[in-house]
Amino acid sequence: MPNATSSSPGSPAADRLIRACRREPVDRTPVWFMRQAGRYLPEYRELREGRDILEACRSPELAVEITMQPLRRMPLDAAILFSDIMVPVAAIGAGVRIVDGVGPVVDEPLRAAGDLGRLRDHLEPDADVGYVLEAIRLLRKELTVPLIGFAGAPFTLASYLVEGGPSRNHERTKALMRSDPDTWARLMEILAGVTVTYLRAQAEAGAQALQVFDSWAGALDPEDYGEFVLPVMRRVFAGLSDLDVPLIHFGVGTGELLAQMRAAGATVVGVDWRVPLDVAWERVGGDVAVQGNLDPAVCLGPWDSVERKAIGVLRRAGGRPGHVFNLGHGVLPQTRPEILERLVDLVHAEVEGAT
Amino acid sequence: MPNATSSSPGSPAADRLIRACRREPVDRTPVWFMRQAGRYLPEYRELREGRDILEACRSPELAVEITMQPLRRMPLDAAILFSDIMVPVAAIGAGVRIVDGVGPVVDEPLRAAGDLGRLRDHLEPDADVGYVLEAIRLLRKELTVPLIGFAGAPFTLASYLVEGGPSRNHERTKALMRSDPDTWARLMEILAGVTVTYLRAQAEAGAQALQVFDSWAGALDPEDYGEFVLPVMRRVFAGLSDLDVPLIHFGVGTGELLAQMRAAGATVVGVDWRVPLDVAWERVGGDVAVQGNLDPAVCLGPWDSVERKAIGVLRRAGGRPGHVFNLGHGVLPQTRPEILERLVDLVHAEVEGAT
Repeated sequence: MPNATSSSPGSPAADRLIRACRREPVDRTPVWFMRQAGRYLPEYRELREGRDILEACRSPELAVEITMQPLRRMPLDAAILFSDIMVPVAAIGAGVRIVDGVGPVVDEPLRAAGDLGRLRDHLEPDADVGYVLEAIRLLRKELTVPLIGFAGAPFTLASYLVEGGPSRNHERTKALMRSDPDTWARLMEILAGVTVTYLRAQAEAGAQALQVFDSWAGALDPEDYGEFVLPVMRRVFAGLSDLDVPLIHFGVGTGELLAQMRAAGATVVGVDWRVPLDVAWERVGGDVAVQGNLDPAVCLGPWDSVERKAIGVLRRAGGRPGHVFNLGHGVLPQTRPEILERLVDLVHAEVEGAT
Repeated sequence: MPNATSSSPGSPAADRLIRACRREPVDRTPVWFMRQAGRYLPEYRELREGRDILEACRSPELAVEITMQPLRRMPLDAAILFSDIMVPVAAIGAGVRIVDGVGPVVDEPLRAAGDLGRLRDHLEPDADVGYVLEAIRLLRKELTVPLIGFAGAPFTLASYLVEGGPSRNHERTKALMRSDPDTWARLMEILAGVTVTYLRAQAEAGAQALQVFDSWAGALDPEDYGEFVLPVMRRVFAGLSDLDVPLIHFGVGTGELLAQMRAAGATVVGVDWRVPLDVAWERVGGDVAVQGNLDPAVCLGPWDSVERKAIGVLRRAGGRPGHVFNLGHGVLPQTRPEILERLVDLVHAEVEGAT
């Protein structure tokens, strides 16, 4: 069985992800998992023991080690930098803590025009997030599969900053959008600028693909998404379009927004599990690649149902060039690593479109 | 302005909801709000002060008073019984507390076959939930608009019982479904039976429409919904189909499940705000009514955006018979009552389909 860390550059494993993102034929469907470097791995929990997530993100050595952990276990077709979407907003002045089992907590949420003064309006990559760029450079020396860099999208970052933490209804964020559109626009402008600067710096440091997580955009109806978010996402992807790296645009519960997300300009659209992959692909159109979309909760059940559901995803992709296998959201902490190891092998063994 | 509590039986206001549910022409679009009797009302907070929700549900006098509160403020076209979906499961032996700001908490979650023994396998309405039936009888004497009874759907109830409380990912519930399908089937059978018995008793006591809340079914992909939930929902609605009351079937984030929900057998499908109402109506088919679907978070913004978005919903309904105006989920606690008062007037003043 090929091992990701031992495949050489130029080998099929090294090219699969990028080729699939460009809708070029591949020998095997590439597979990686959102949060593949994370809490489900005992070696991750051991390394993180007593350490804050942001502290781990700020140590290039730790970030490299955590990024590499899943690749030592299974022949994934990509690494994704271990980091957190709140890193760049913390760097420009938002007071952010990541609370285990909760998520990002912002002690002084941004809720009015005056609060924006607490944020610097731009990111200085080397000074602010040099440790991220250093981790990327170190990783590129170790890796033989592509390294994915990432950032949070402005709406999702804004939700944490405005709500003060994870939110079921995003009510304060939506209220701000409508009650104070100028402050909203200014906040989105700052965050869009920071996101573009941050992702460009990652690509320059060596990231070979970039994923933008707009995890919570699915809380919006298509009209609001079109009015308050889509123009910002267009600016983000326009600001990255000259880079020679695939751009992946992902959100949860975005079934009704897929066509708009495609219009924002990424060339790969990540899909959650609620929409069957073939239906999703139809909504985004045939001229982009798709990534997804096994329900992460399936991986908590027995192997035979993981197998059946994963094969279902591959069948829906139907062997068309342009499918990157992934979960429909991040790996759940309770997942047994063995399940993901078998899943990688299954995806690599299946020939898409076979019946 | 007509006042709901003063409109007499047989008047247009008294008939609007039922007529719309049956897709008969109406003089005005009927409007009510999920959680219209609730925390956003100062008079509710005052009455609840220091009292547990389940305690309030168990007092017919309090339940009647809370149910009536919003109707004294605004000419709603329906009352919905003040109660909680956990009432019948608490009555058959699940140890449930409702924690303010959190939701239902089950201290000893059900996670294995042996745990099911803690639940009685059926509900005895008079003995177990006589207070609910008494509240319904008392309300019918006071009300001149229809009274909606309700229950939680088996999947949503099971999620609380299995997870032990509200859950973002419903991971233990989904794991149980797959790891122990027999226990899952038995749990769903018990809950389906309880739900049918409970709703039949409510109709017999005087409820004039019944809503089934499968609030969290949208966490499932269409395949899993079809395998693990749809057959149960068919049994629930089949068990109610001889009753001469409209049956409303509601869930959040169910855009991809709407056709299946329609197939489950209700005659009104409730829709959340993520799917534009005309798109949703197309998915459920023209032979059922639809209820919805203004984003409740819109009501936290300024009136002009509430107005614009509400008119958008009415336009999408397009004046076709069979639209019940509602929010796409429950009223948020931070909502100003004045906003809902104006919204009721707006819906009653708008002629659907006008441009």
